[in-house]
Amino acid sequence: MELNVYLSGEIHTDWREQIIQGCQEHDLNITFCSANTNHDESDSAGDALGNEDKSFWRDHKSAKVNALRTNTLIERCDIAIIRFGDKYKQWNAAFDAGYCAALSKPYITLHSEDIIHPLKEVDAAAHAWATTVEQVVETLKYISNN
Amino acid sequence: MELNVYLSGEIHTDWREQIIQGCQEHDLNITFCSANTNHDESDSAGDALGNEDKSFWRDHKSAKVNALRTNTLIERCDIAIIRFGDKYKQWNAAFDAGYCAALSKPYITLHSEDIIHPLKEVDAAAHAWATTVEQVVETLKYISNN
Amino acid sequence: MELNVYLSGEIHTDWREQIIQGCQEHDLNITFCSANTNHDESDSAGDALGNEDKSFWRDHKSAKVNALRTNTLIERCDIAIIRFGDKYKQWNAAFDAGYCAALSKPYITLHSEDIIHPLKEVDAAAHAWATTVEQVVETLKYISNN
Amino acid sequence: MELNVYLSGEIHTDWREQIIQGCQEHDLNITFCSANTNHDESDSAGDALGNEDKSFWRDHKSAKVNALRTNTLIERCDIAIIRFGDKYKQWNAAFDAGYCAALSKPYITLHSEDIIHPLKEVDAAAHAWATTVEQVVETLKYISNN
Amino acid sequence: MELNVYLSGEIHTDWREQIIQGCQEHDLNITFCSANTNHDESDSAGDALGNEDKSFWRDHKSAKVNALRTNTLIERCDIAIIRFGDKYKQWNAAFDAGYCAALSKPYITLHSEDIIHPLKEVDAAAHAWATTVEQVVETLKYISNN
Amino acid sequence: MELNVYLSGEIHTDWREQIIQGCQEHDLNITFCSANTNHDESDSAGDALGNEDKSFWRDHKSAKVNALRTNTLIERCDIAIIRFGDKYKQWNAAFDAGYCAALSKPYITLHSEDIIHPLKEVDAAAHAWATTVEQVVETLKYISNN
Amino acid sequence: MELNVYLSGEIHTDWREQIIQGCQEHDLNITFCSANTNHDESDSAGDALGNEDKSFWRDHKSAKVNALRTNTLIERCDIAIIRFGDKYKQWNAAFDAGYCAALSKPYITLHSEDIIHPLKEVDAAAHAWATTVEQVVETLKYISNN
Amino acid sequence: MELNVYLSGEIHTDWREQIIQGCQEHDLNITFCSANTNHDESDSAGDALGNEDKSFWRDHKSAKVNALRTNTLIERCDIAIIRFGDKYKQWNAAFDAGYCAALSKPYITLHSEDIIHPLKEVDAAAHAWATTVEQVVETLKYISNN
Repeated sequence: MELNVYLSGEIHTDWREQIIQGCQEHDLNITFCSANTNHDESDSAGDALGNEDKSFWRDHKSAKVNALRTNTLIERCDIAIIRFGDKYKQWNAAFDAGYCAALSKPYITLHSEDIIHPLKEVDAAAHAWATTVEQVVETLKYISNN
Repeated sequence: MELNVYLSGEIHTDWREQIIQGCQEHDLNITFCSANTNHDESDSAGDALGNEDKSFWRDHKSAKVNALRTNTLIERCDIAIIRFGDKYKQWNAAFDAGYCAALSKPYITLHSEDIIHPLKEVDAAAHAWATTVEQVVETLKYISNN
Repeated sequence: MELNVYLSGEIHTDWREQIIQGCQEHDLNITFCSANTNHDESDSAGDALGNEDKSFWRDHKSAKVNALRTNTLIERCDIAIIRFGDKYKQWNAAFDAGYCAALSKPYITLHSEDIIHPLKEVDAAAHAWATTVEQVVETLKYISNN
Repeated sequence: MELNVYLSGEIHTDWREQIIQGCQEHDLNITFCSANTNHDESDSAGDALGNEDKSFWRDHKSAKVNALRTNTLIERCDIAIIRFGDKYKQWNAAFDAGYCAALSKPYITLHSEDIIHPLKEVDAAAHAWATTVEQVVETLKYISNN
Repeated sequence: MELNVYLSGEIHTDWREQIIQGCQEHDLNITFCSANTNHDESDSAGDALGNEDKSFWRDHKSAKVNALRTNTLIERCDIAIIRFGDKYKQWNAAFDAGYCAALSKPYITLHSEDIIHPLKEVDAAAHAWATTVEQVVETLKYISNN
Repeated sequence: MELNVYLSGEIHTDWREQIIQGCQEHDLNITFCSANTNHDESDSAGDALGNEDKSFWRDHKSAKVNALRTNTLIERCDIAIIRFGDKYKQWNAAFDAGYCAALSKPYITLHSEDIIHPLKEVDAAAHAWATTVEQVVETLKYISNN
Repeated sequence: MELNVYLSGEIHTDWREQIIQGCQEHDLNITFCSANTNHDESDSAGDALGNEDKSFWRDHKSAKVNALRTNTLIERCDIAIIRFGDKYKQWNAAFDAGYCAALSKPYITLHSEDIIHPLKEVDAAAHAWATTVEQVVETLKYISNN
Repeated sequence: MELNVYLSGEIHTDWREQIIQGCQEHDLNITFCSANTNHDESDSAGDALGNEDKSFWRDHKSAKVNALRTNTLIERCDIAIIRFGDKYKQWNAAFDAGYCAALSKPYITLHSEDIIHPLKEVDAAAHAWATTVEQVVETLKYISNN
């Protein structure tokens, strides 16, 4: 089964690469996509459209240019993996989860045990919760191979 | 114009009461609704369905019982106000924002200037950003009176 | 919070009446609706449209006349309660559950522990699983009162 | 006409293989897909995500991992074939039928005459009812060849 | 059960009045609506918007003004009754049936036996077929009373 | 521009072949599809599923088997051409038009001037009305070439 | 027939008042709604949310606050009247027309003959074109009274 | 990331060619499409369907034939670029923007600073505003390359 998987969330660790590599080792027929994970590029995505004095508007323009990509990618994907790390607010990951839930796009959350409680609403709408990259790969392998 | 407004997010301050009272002072024709804001009640919403040893499943059951309410309330509302305070993760607020965005339900965010950057994706899909309760009341008054 | 609740499934016990009475005792603002639970009336719902020699077509006509009601009722409801008893196939209850799931109508299943395994797909898409009528009433009370 | 056909239901007989082989003999341009029909694999689909003491949660996790596959497959298919055998509850088959009905995905039921009555609601929303694999193949051949 | 019923089709007999009266005699809680059944008024519905030399455009304008009503009424109704008499083409009735089918609005057809064959596609998507007004009233009574 | 065009309606003349040939002569990138236009095959489409004594049920079964094809084809098409000839009732053509209209699938009607009046509702929802096959080819050529 | 009518477009003449008064004279059961037609209030709708140096962002904030109202009003309305006067760009009126068209909300355009050509796409998706307020009132009266 | 981009609006300058060429220079994987930009051809798109004396109906027929193309193209696109020049009314561009907004298709507006005010509603629903072709190319490059 061919799958299109969207990887959302934490950008400061290499969890995306680990999942992609893990799936390649099993020769799974999966196409991965993602928001731009280069922090500086992402923050300046709207700069080409003109400078802004206020940080709110600079962020606003960049967030919307990035949304041009991510809305399209989420619409196209079959499944999303949503990763919450132990740093930063990561509200965009929770936003993506809510967006997927409303569109009935199934998603898997990936986070450690110590943030179960604040993520309970996000997990409640998920199809699965994983704590390790290996579990995500194993689950994608199961879905993809059958 | 009669409005149905959903109040999402922070439960440790009285921002909901302030908005409701502010709108009452202007005699606005607005019905407010909200997730259960009593922390303990909310956390134990699923306990009647049987005890769980693992905190994940206790949280899971309670979150889903609460979702029975909130999904219905979000579907019914015209506008949502989504509040981010300066404490806690508040991923459920960001989740609600994403859910509203995908359903094309317009929402207003309410948060201080110092969290503009981590909320840029949530704000990018919002119809307005307010920093004070007074601004929210003023905006609802404008919408409701015209 | 006013609710419209659809009661689906088993018709040979009085679980509907128990739920309705339990909610009345708590003065909950809930309107209940249901498929026709009179077995003979339900089976003969299409007889007025002409007799059929084959049982398949008699059943077919009656099932479609009943579907005129139930489709409309499910579309209107906020929440469904789906009951599986220990007798009969009750495929219509599972059908209603799938129908609700695809429409993103949240539902609560009501069944005993010994049929957890065959109902795992139905429960997986549910917002809650209850084993007793009291648990359903308690959950509706929670949703309705907050 | 190229078709994508989803095969839902009974996993203890070889009706799937018979349909696939029958269609191959007629060189039909049909891609078949299905939930995982290996009972043990299906039941343990969620085990990689951590052990559970309670059977409900083990089933729950596996059912949701399987739903990641089946929701996606049902969304993609043009037509579903839904098989009810003479053993087991097969509520997941009825659930899939309801899911298809709500999404306006046409489906064909495959079951013997003696369970017409309990399946009347499921059949009422179907586009066809077959009693033999040959009838299903014949119908797919007709649809596919014209 | 309160119902909103749309009456579509033949305008040269009093089948609408018969159904309405029949339902009133049973005190059913049904609101009926309909396209304008006054032939001349209906044909001239667009005349106020300016005269047309070509009959095509006169018909076009009137048909669209009538569609302003009928689209709205069909969107609002729970069930449609679609009547085919023995005279005239009545393509608008078949058009309404297709419109309802695509919107998943259930409908009942009302026509005599001698036009079964040309109406087979319209009947195939219907929830019921009646040959007499009494049967329609009986069916509405069943739906409404339970 | 590549197009997928559904041809609905009259089956007793060769208008389909004329349109297909006309488009081939202009090398247009169009895929055509259609309901089964072989009258006898279409009427017996459901016979493989078992004999029926009543003509209503034979027609019903065949119409539903054909609907398995046509629903899928209409969902997939970009544009429909809907043809009304001067014989027979052709209610299925009007049904397809209503179905397309509700799905916002644009369609072109093809019929002579003398049936403008009974087709006014069907034409009102159309994107174009043609009286000759050449006009349809010309319009498809325009759409396809630009 | 009770109607909810949204009045969009030109704000520098009293066409809204004329339509409302004309409908009142006929005692029509119509509720009218509209974007804020006070130019200064509309332009400053977002000012309460903080000052902006750049006119783009001031306009942006006000336009989005107004959209909170107008999106909700358009979602609720049955029919829209869209007015183009002879001055100003009035792109928001054309935007509302496109928005209605995509939602399948029927609308009537109101404009003089000399702007037929630039409005041809907007008129092509309309259900009616009127040149005078009287024609709009007459059409609403027809729709409402039948 | 492969993209399908719809170019809407002004037809009297070569902004489309500039964007297409700019993207080709960066080897972006983008397919562009557009309404027919040949003014005369577009105005006569419906002429093949018969002559009209009134300019309204000639425009109407051509606009609808063009809509056959543009509706299909907008449905297929991932992103739209909507261009407003300094001449003409360009209501069709604003109409397309509203159409995209209601379908949740993201779009970028392209216009100079001096028409910020009349375009504020159109810009409010956009994901980005550009004043030069280079900015559009830069943004598409960012979206496409990441």
